[in-house]
Amino acid sequence: MAAVYIAGVGMTKFGKSSQTLAGLFCEAAVSALSNSPIQEVDALYIGVMNPEEFTGDSNIASQIAESLGVIGLPAVRVETASSAGAAALHAAWQAVASGYYRHVLVLGGEKMTHLSTSATTRILAEVIDKQERQCGSTMPALAAMITERYRKRYRLSHSRLERMLCRVAMKNHKNGSHNPYAQFRQAITEKSYFASKFVSTPLRLYDCSPITDGAAAMILTSERGDVVVSGIGQGTGPLSLRERDSFTSFRATQIAAARAYQMAGTSPKEIDFAEVHDAFTPFEIICTEDLGFFPRGGGGHAVEEGKTSLEGPLPINPSGGLKSRGHPVGASGVAQVVEVVWRLRGDTEAKLKREAKRALAQSTGGLGANNFVTIVERADAPLATRPRISPSAPPARQRPSAKKSLPAPISGEGRIETFTILYVTPDGFLPPLALALIRERQGSLLMAQGEDISHLKIGREVYLRQVGDRYLFTVKSHLTKVREALRKLLRRIPPRPPKGKASAKKGAP
Amino acid sequence: MAAVYIAGVGMTKFGKSSQTLAGLFCEAAVSALSNSPIQEVDALYIGVMNPEEFTGDSNIASQIAESLGVIGLPAVRVETASSAGAAALHAAWQAVASGYYRHVLVLGGEKMTHLSTSATTRILAEVIDKQERQCGSTMPALAAMITERYRKRYRLSHSRLERMLCRVAMKNHKNGSHNPYAQFRQAITEKSYFASKFVSTPLRLYDCSPITDGAAAMILTSERGDVVVSGIGQGTGPLSLRERDSFTSFRATQIAAARAYQMAGTSPKEIDFAEVHDAFTPFEIICTEDLGFFPRGGGGHAVEEGKTSLEGPLPINPSGGLKSRGHPVGASGVAQVVEVVWRLRGDTEAKLKREAKRALAQSTGGLGANNFVTIVERADAPLATRPRISPSAPPARQRPSAKKSLPAPISGEGRIETFTILYVTPDGFLPPLALALIRERQGSLLMAQGEDISHLKIGREVYLRQVGDRYLFTVKSHLTKVREALRKLLRRIPPRPPKGKASAKKGAP
Repeated sequence: MAAVYIAGVGMTKFGKSSQTLAGLFCEAAVSALSNSPIQEVDALYIGVMNPEEFTGDSNIASQIAESLGVIGLPAVRVETASSAGAAALHAAWQAVASGYYRHVLVLGGEKMTHLSTSATTRILAEVIDKQERQCGSTMPALAAMITERYRKRYRLSHSRLERMLCRVAMKNHKNGSHNPYAQFRQAITEKSYFASKFVSTPLRLYDCSPITDGAAAMILTSERGDVVVSGIGQGTGPLSLRERDSFTSFRATQIAAARAYQMAGTSPKEIDFAEVHDAFTPFEIICTEDLGFFPRGGGGHAVEEGKTSLEGPLPINPSGGLKSRGHPVGASGVAQVVEVVWRLRGDTEAKLKREAKRALAQSTGGLGANNFVTIVERADAPLATRPRISPSAPPARQRPSAKKSLPAPISGEGRIETFTILYVTPDGFLPPLALALIRERQGSLLMAQGEDISHLKIGREVYLRQVGDRYLFTVKSHLTKVREALRKLLRRIPPRPPKGKASAKKGAP
Repeated sequence: MAAVYIAGVGMTKFGKSSQTLAGLFCEAAVSALSNSPIQEVDALYIGVMNPEEFTGDSNIASQIAESLGVIGLPAVRVETASSAGAAALHAAWQAVASGYYRHVLVLGGEKMTHLSTSATTRILAEVIDKQERQCGSTMPALAAMITERYRKRYRLSHSRLERMLCRVAMKNHKNGSHNPYAQFRQAITEKSYFASKFVSTPLRLYDCSPITDGAAAMILTSERGDVVVSGIGQGTGPLSLRERDSFTSFRATQIAAARAYQMAGTSPKEIDFAEVHDAFTPFEIICTEDLGFFPRGGGGHAVEEGKTSLEGPLPINPSGGLKSRGHPVGASGVAQVVEVVWRLRGDTEAKLKREAKRALAQSTGGLGANNFVTIVERADAPLATRPRISPSAPPARQRPSAKKSLPAPISGEGRIETFTILYVTPDGFLPPLALALIRERQGSLLMAQGEDISHLKIGREVYLRQVGDRYLFTVKSHLTKVREALRKLLRRIPPRPPKGKASAKKGAP
């Protein structure tokens, strides 16, 4: 296996752009070439999530080859939802490591701001499981439900959780204020955080990464350079929330990280800084736990204690992250590694406190369904921990089989596992919309839409009914519980013997 | 670079299926595992063209990992329009050759038949250049224009060309009649071919591959087996017809073939049979020329002489090809290699005349915009020509740059380069629709819609006008030419001096 180095890197400014998707890709490519000793490449690897629906572009790989004036060159598009950029990077790594290509250009990009927020939300929501989408779930809604569950599991008060999330947002906006490529370059205050509206409780606008246009690029090469990709790893997880073992961590990240650390011969302790997928502020907290930087439930405390700030021992998202730099979905996986390379080379305005030798980038596809970890080192990193570029068995080989999941029978009653109130709803749903993951009596989980937004709490009992493809729930209030108890009592009293039809119609003339 | 072998292979029956896309992938995977010594894999590589629009599925790689019951395993989707299956296969090859994975499952599939023909045609047409689409161009329309140009270039009469196309269709349907996985298993007669309706002149229904559901699968491994992938190559070409150097060949195929032959240390002469991308019958003819099997303009004669039949010296599409097996776009690139492996192993009903040691599969993305060539050999093939598994430089390394193509000014007149009359039109266009590639006076090419369908011929002069985003053309008829000549003549006669306003209004009271 050949070592794979990173030559030129570059990106467009992220934000609202008047350029076409092809134009963004071209600008990023030119930017990467401008600082690259390698000027000619053998192939293009392009990460983009959904140009079919965002811009009506199909056959995108050939189109980008044409726009870059390199018709003839092999070009492929690689896609794994919002981690498509990282997927393209890893596929390109494999191509160079195999020796089939020597130099390849990796591109990640997306064009999203020209559509309405509801249209973009709908397209983004297609990465979610169908049953959960049918109730009106969006990415923020599911992220919110994970957050509420995290709060409950680690016994945090509502205000304590909010302070933690606020700290993530403030840190990333502060970091982004130094980043000339970031969509938002202003620091935010605690006051402005708490003044921002709820998107989906407990997540506010300032907890969510924005809708953004942008592209990023880099050249991977087998020619020795100053920065080397020493470890890569990928893992998948279920699309739906209801199929998960854990609601407070992403196994896909853990799998990806284990493989990447093993390959690089390193551990979380040896990482100097990291760019992680903070599409939602709580995801940064969970991610730092999944990557082994902090113990379970310790990610929120770490950010409160300033451990992950630019001045702390382990800066997280020194670039500002998706939160402040923006999140053109297909671009983010490449942009994170571009930022990592800039910092390893010392090519940034805001310097890290300590010189960094080794960093990590983590990218998330969908709701933690297809995640990537990339470890990048300076080629002059101490030999003891130099990357072991050798094949290593993946953590878990598996036997594919056709898994048939039958719809579970619905008993009519259940209990809330987690919930949210969604204020920015997809087309066809009126806000505020209560959504909850319900464990019904027979043990299976399902996503349901609330008939109203009151009395929501984890553990509350609910009635369930099915309307078409959707499930609706009503929380059993104190009153309904009394009614139920009465009904049971009445059932125990033997019915009076019937007195004939005539008597029943006594009042009739 | 490790040698990459093919273990189990399999596919679903192609045709109209009541299964979901995930169901098709599962069936193909189970079929490949049923004859594989390797039962566990490290990753999934999935080729699928447009599940976003065909079935509303996004995040497909994670979804398929879930359906196959292998959540946790890395899974990526690779896409290059209609060659997506081949793209996934080549990316998977690179992953195994790099040593990063040992065994991977490659899947290709598409679900298309549940939509109306016009909806499917519209989605398929998105792979075409936008300007050409705006006039109503579809894939069959562009294929037809290429065919008309081929006829003209090689001085074939209309009837001669039609006989050649008919022979391709008859051969592939006859081959498909032996294939239990094929969508169409009946041989067709010359009479039925000529009775089939025009889709886009000169292409009839029997010249076009059908709309199909299906999936194919194979396991690639570094563990020594009986069949080895000895050469892979990819090339791209322009999306549009008007940007091409040649209208009668696909450079993307030539580039892909050159690389694959070089890597395998072989040549067209040493190929025993091939599966090529006959989405349209003329494409099979052109492809056999691009692959170097026959000289330029010789592909049609070869099929007439029976050289490419099952009994001939170089069987082309012994499986029945896309034409008869069907063309679930993302599946075809994998299915072709599955068919090749079956024939190399002798696992098919209809045997080849001679024992085959080495075969080739060629897949086309869009209108020859992203093409792949894969060479597969029996591991016991004679040593002299055993694959050279070693890095080899790609034929042409290129420097990317931002290519700005400005819209050409329109002079108002031009000449027909090629044309077709489209009878199966996309939504918003009424049949019959005349379409032509016009070289306007200043030398640039553009696609235009005819104001009527008469007088069409390569070389004819036309008037051009722009209406919104579209160009319209009218052929200069004999009458208009006379009128034009008269007008020119009149311009030479000096105008009579004006006689004042009063005389002009002589008739007024």
